[in-house]
Amino acid sequence: MQMKRCVILCAAPRKDAGFFSRFIRESDYLICVDGGMTYAQQIDRTPDLLVGDFDSMPYQTFSGFEVIRHPPEKDDTDAMLAVKEGLRRGYRDFLFLAATGGRLDHTIANLMLLDYLNAHNAQGTIQDENNTLLFLRNASLSLPGEAGGKFSVFAWGGDAENISIKNAAYPVERFVMHPGYPSGVSNEFLNGPAEISVDSGALLICISKD
Amino acid sequence: MQMKRCVILCAAPRKDAGFFSRFIRESDYLICVDGGMTYAQQIDRTPDLLVGDFDSMPYQTFSGFEVIRHPPEKDDTDAMLAVKEGLRRGYRDFLFLAATGGRLDHTIANLMLLDYLNAHNAQGTIQDENNTLLFLRNASLSLPGEAGGKFSVFAWGGDAENISIKNAAYPVERFVMHPGYPSGVSNEFLNGPAEISVDSGALLICISKD
Repeated sequence: MQMKRCVILCAAPRKDAGFFSRFIRESDYLICVDGGMTYAQQIDRTPDLLVGDFDSMPYQTFSGFEVIRHPPEKDDTDAMLAVKEGLRRGYRDFLFLAATGGRLDHTIANLMLLDYLNAHNAQGTIQDENNTLLFLRNASLSLPGEAGGKFSVFAWGGDAENISIKNAAYPVERFVMHPGYPSGVSNEFLNGPAEISVDSGALLICISKD
Repeated sequence: MQMKRCVILCAAPRKDAGFFSRFIRESDYLICVDGGMTYAQQIDRTPDLLVGDFDSMPYQTFSGFEVIRHPPEKDDTDAMLAVKEGLRRGYRDFLFLAATGGRLDHTIANLMLLDYLNAHNAQGTIQDENNTLLFLRNASLSLPGEAGGKFSVFAWGGDAENISIKNAAYPVERFVMHPGYPSGVSNEFLNGPAEISVDSGALLICISKD
């Protein structure tokens, strides 16, 4: 039996929550992070768990689902607390929504969560209106995408060595990337998935559209 | 005599260019990156240089300023080409506008430009409506901000060791940060600038407001 997916619905500002409903399945375990609860209400979806310090929404008594309230003064971000709860409950496949935009500090912190999940034998995807973000360390991946669509590859947290990108407009072999030089931006899908691998180090992979 | 500042006006989507005019001084050397030219026109500012592959705006004949046209198939992003031109012309202080939002691949690539500039004896700041981003490697910095305002500190490109943050709501000493764990999010200014230093490694510093 395949383990269910954990969706973490964050609180980055959005005009319309409708986008999120396209990505949340009935079977998902849904954790709302603080103001992300408002988005769940807008799309008529009851979370399984609400985690937060309630600094972006007033605290109130909810019923029908679990609530974990943290103090505002804490070491972890609300999204990290949600990730730790998800991991503790056995989930290994995570999807983040409303995790980008507005405050870049939160966006960058959320990118780091993909790294954190990878280090904990799990994997995460960040999805927004323009971008799909994935993380890869010492591994390979078939990246699906439409022919002509763009994807970018970045070294994350250190040099990434022996990178291979196949079945793409700009293929590379035994390539090295550095966090101080964006040398893998705007590669392009051909027909079928791009094949990406890295032997040493980590890659942040970003499928983007305008 | 102080060297003039180089402003790089990028092409991330914006509804209104008025924000940018608040940050561009008369004395700045202004490089427009591709569609950033549209923003310059909207605020009635003539660039000193236009760099791009003209994939986000139609190529046309401009007069009154220099234009460097690159082919769309190239190793560097348009913004990196602008940075290299700025460095070649002697600038060491860079400000990036319209460098965040929309496509996250471009945003992440632009974060890397701050690292690149630091490695080339220069410094860059990314400014948008919610965020000010700075880069610090093996150095210290007085970070100005309003009392109660938020700032975050991230390890960039590897572990950052012996970090000190003083005159802040959550001060640290001899602290270590990792790119796979966001442990420095939402610190808070007290009165006067926060004092940040790192002995080994690099920090991305983000002043954010909602």
